[in-house]
Amino acid sequence: MSKTEPRTLAGFMELLPEEQILFEQIKNTIEKTYQKFGFLPLDTPIIELSEVLLAKPGGETEKQIYRFQKGDTDLALRFDLTVPLAKFVAKNYGNLSFPFRRYQIGKVYRGEKAQKGRFREFYQCDIDIIGDGELNTMNDAEIPSVIYNVFKELGFDNFTIRINNRKLLNGLFESIDQKNNSTEILRIIDKIEKIGKEEVIKELKELKVTDEAIDKIIGFIEIKGTSDEKLEKLEKLGINNDTYKEGLEELTQTVKYVRAFQVPDKNFNVDLTIARGLDYYTGTVYETFLNDYRELGSVCSGGRYENLAEYYTDKKLPGVGISIGLTRLFYKLNELKLIQAKQKSISKVLVIPMLEDMETPIEIASKLRTKGINTEVYLNDKKLKSKMKYADKLQIPYVIVVGEDEVKSGVVKVKNMQTGVEKEMSILEDIDESLFE
Amino acid sequence: MSKTEPRTLAGFMELLPEEQILFEQIKNTIEKTYQKFGFLPLDTPIIELSEVLLAKPGGETEKQIYRFQKGDTDLALRFDLTVPLAKFVAKNYGNLSFPFRRYQIGKVYRGEKAQKGRFREFYQCDIDIIGDGELNTMNDAEIPSVIYNVFKELGFDNFTIRINNRKLLNGLFESIDQKNNSTEILRIIDKIEKIGKEEVIKELKELKVTDEAIDKIIGFIEIKGTSDEKLEKLEKLGINNDTYKEGLEELTQTVKYVRAFQVPDKNFNVDLTIARGLDYYTGTVYETFLNDYRELGSVCSGGRYENLAEYYTDKKLPGVGISIGLTRLFYKLNELKLIQAKQKSISKVLVIPMLEDMETPIEIASKLRTKGINTEVYLNDKKLKSKMKYADKLQIPYVIVVGEDEVKSGVVKVKNMQTGVEKEMSILEDIDESLFE
Repeated sequence: MSKTEPRTLAGFMELLPEEQILFEQIKNTIEKTYQKFGFLPLDTPIIELSEVLLAKPGGETEKQIYRFQKGDTDLALRFDLTVPLAKFVAKNYGNLSFPFRRYQIGKVYRGEKAQKGRFREFYQCDIDIIGDGELNTMNDAEIPSVIYNVFKELGFDNFTIRINNRKLLNGLFESIDQKNNSTEILRIIDKIEKIGKEEVIKELKELKVTDEAIDKIIGFIEIKGTSDEKLEKLEKLGINNDTYKEGLEELTQTVKYVRAFQVPDKNFNVDLTIARGLDYYTGTVYETFLNDYRELGSVCSGGRYENLAEYYTDKKLPGVGISIGLTRLFYKLNELKLIQAKQKSISKVLVIPMLEDMETPIEIASKLRTKGINTEVYLNDKKLKSKMKYADKLQIPYVIVVGEDEVKSGVVKVKNMQTGVEKEMSILEDIDESLFE
Repeated sequence: MSKTEPRTLAGFMELLPEEQILFEQIKNTIEKTYQKFGFLPLDTPIIELSEVLLAKPGGETEKQIYRFQKGDTDLALRFDLTVPLAKFVAKNYGNLSFPFRRYQIGKVYRGEKAQKGRFREFYQCDIDIIGDGELNTMNDAEIPSVIYNVFKELGFDNFTIRINNRKLLNGLFESIDQKNNSTEILRIIDKIEKIGKEEVIKELKELKVTDEAIDKIIGFIEIKGTSDEKLEKLEKLGINNDTYKEGLEELTQTVKYVRAFQVPDKNFNVDLTIARGLDYYTGTVYETFLNDYRELGSVCSGGRYENLAEYYTDKKLPGVGISIGLTRLFYKLNELKLIQAKQKSISKVLVIPMLEDMETPIEIASKLRTKGINTEVYLNDKKLKSKMKYADKLQIPYVIVVGEDEVKSGVVKVKNMQTGVEKEMSILEDIDESLFE
């Protein structure tokens, strides 16, 4: 029979078990942290009506989207978790309690150019807080404390959550009469780290921004110092524009409360250069950088939007949220060897039967499982050596060999596979969990 | 602005938070049980090359599959988790340890006719044990013990795992010279519970099976009694055919070891009428029924296949596994009110600040989270009554109101929202977890 080559599509991550165990651990850590802050789980379909997913006209995503017909229906795969959230909240408005705090961890799809480290199917881990009509700045301040806890739990110390507020820039643009260019200017400024100041100036000139206005923009984004110094300098710029003042007030409040939320000063700062490419955000914006690995880019980003579901409902639903692109993060951390698969097995104990009657080996395994200890019984007919090799290869921490002698005596030996130390255990009494620590 | 209606596609489950919490609990219970038996996690892409997913020719699934072009590539969404497993094992053969025990819990897609309780996107929760060249009957016997533990953990008692072996029927067919009709005959027999004996006989006649052969078939599937009595009667039928004898030997062994695996006799039996519609299985087959709710059909099915990945590799990879169709199961259990959402919130505690300075409320929340207690701080500017109403609506079990007095005294009241009882807690010392039990 001719065989089909068992290929996996480029841009689709598929891990071996030991990497998958690690991936699951990281995903669980993120999920548990989200839950600790009381975010509720949500699981929306991966397929939606194209009409619903693309309700917002002119999105960048349209080119990349996986879109197809099934029968007469025009379908698409979700490209983020925010649009499905907007749909969900608009649809179920009457059944939700606000502020509605939800997390969602799931796969999204973007048909990007396939290249190393770029994924077409990837996990996003999102939280959002949605208000009914209003949502105060305290919520903007709580988000960084969730980011902080996630990355601490993942074992990082040297990371910075950068915070800005788009109203500052928008107000600045209004004050220099560049409001109509603001989206385009934001896009250019957002690239300053990548392309440098000169290139930004060049691109702004191409946009026909006046030299005077460019000076103000560059002066603004070059404000240096600690978060407090920056806030002070922003105040002193004396820009007399309502949007600007609102942004400054919000940013000042956010910084104050981020501290109240116990995020250390070393892990966050005001960064006037970040603006988040998407025109989606309307107030606070966040990016998160691992300082020793800046090349990763932002590992957790988000912000405030004044109107989550405006394409579906007249209700005003302001929100604030973040997203972690887990697949790419995992890939990069793995590549940099910052994380490492430590377990090849999910089992803590391998019970190896060396006798005909399986009753005792299975009895031992059941007892261990009751204590919450993952346990596997080696079932195939092999010599002891092969069975031990299996434990070795999968790095199962403890092995218990059960033969006729053990059944007779009621005592087995628990072998620590790393140290080689063997300890006796009675199989007639309750399991002593400390033998497996 | 004109609005798009926020619709979700028919046949796609999308739950409200309280139902989603329950769904997650059930999913986690299944996953934890799979892990207790040492199954390794796997997560394959939802999109695969059509060529790969449809390597097996003439499958029934081809009509239902979600298949589309992206650029020049012919893609399809997975319709089960077994085909991706076969691809994965063939692809990574050299990097896996055998027997390879894996679980996968994920969404699959079938464009079935939309009707109540039928889903086009649904979760499957699969385990499989794959051998390299061989895999003994002990593995067939361990699978029911995993099923048993899953349904016990889910809170069921009155369920039966029905076990059969296809070699018995195949051997029977060989012995009555109906081997070429076997797939078709199996399909007909499989429907006996639904359509009745007379209809089965009628359909067999339409297939031009002789009356004598029909008598044998019916005689065979009508064998009654306990599992042991059935095995005895099968022996006594005296069918002199190797396949039949092999099947009987395997089934006898499986029953013997299922008992060794501590599955009580009340939760399993030999059932000669089940054959699993799919021609996929070659030996042991399983179905699981909740006896008080037979109308649900089998809630967990599977079996033994001699060659998992024959369309991808020459390696012989026998396997045995099962699948739980979780989305449908959840829907049905919910409809029958056998499960009920008990939690509307993921938070155990709501901290309600009634003062300007948020430091103390946040400090309390952080301390609680450190103890693993999910805690939310109410952040919006509302009157106390509104804040309490939020706790009430979400049924958050405990509430701590923090005002100026509490900050001064260093003592807060922990209110049990169900009993109304308030207990004092010092906020200066370590949190006393017993207050939240």
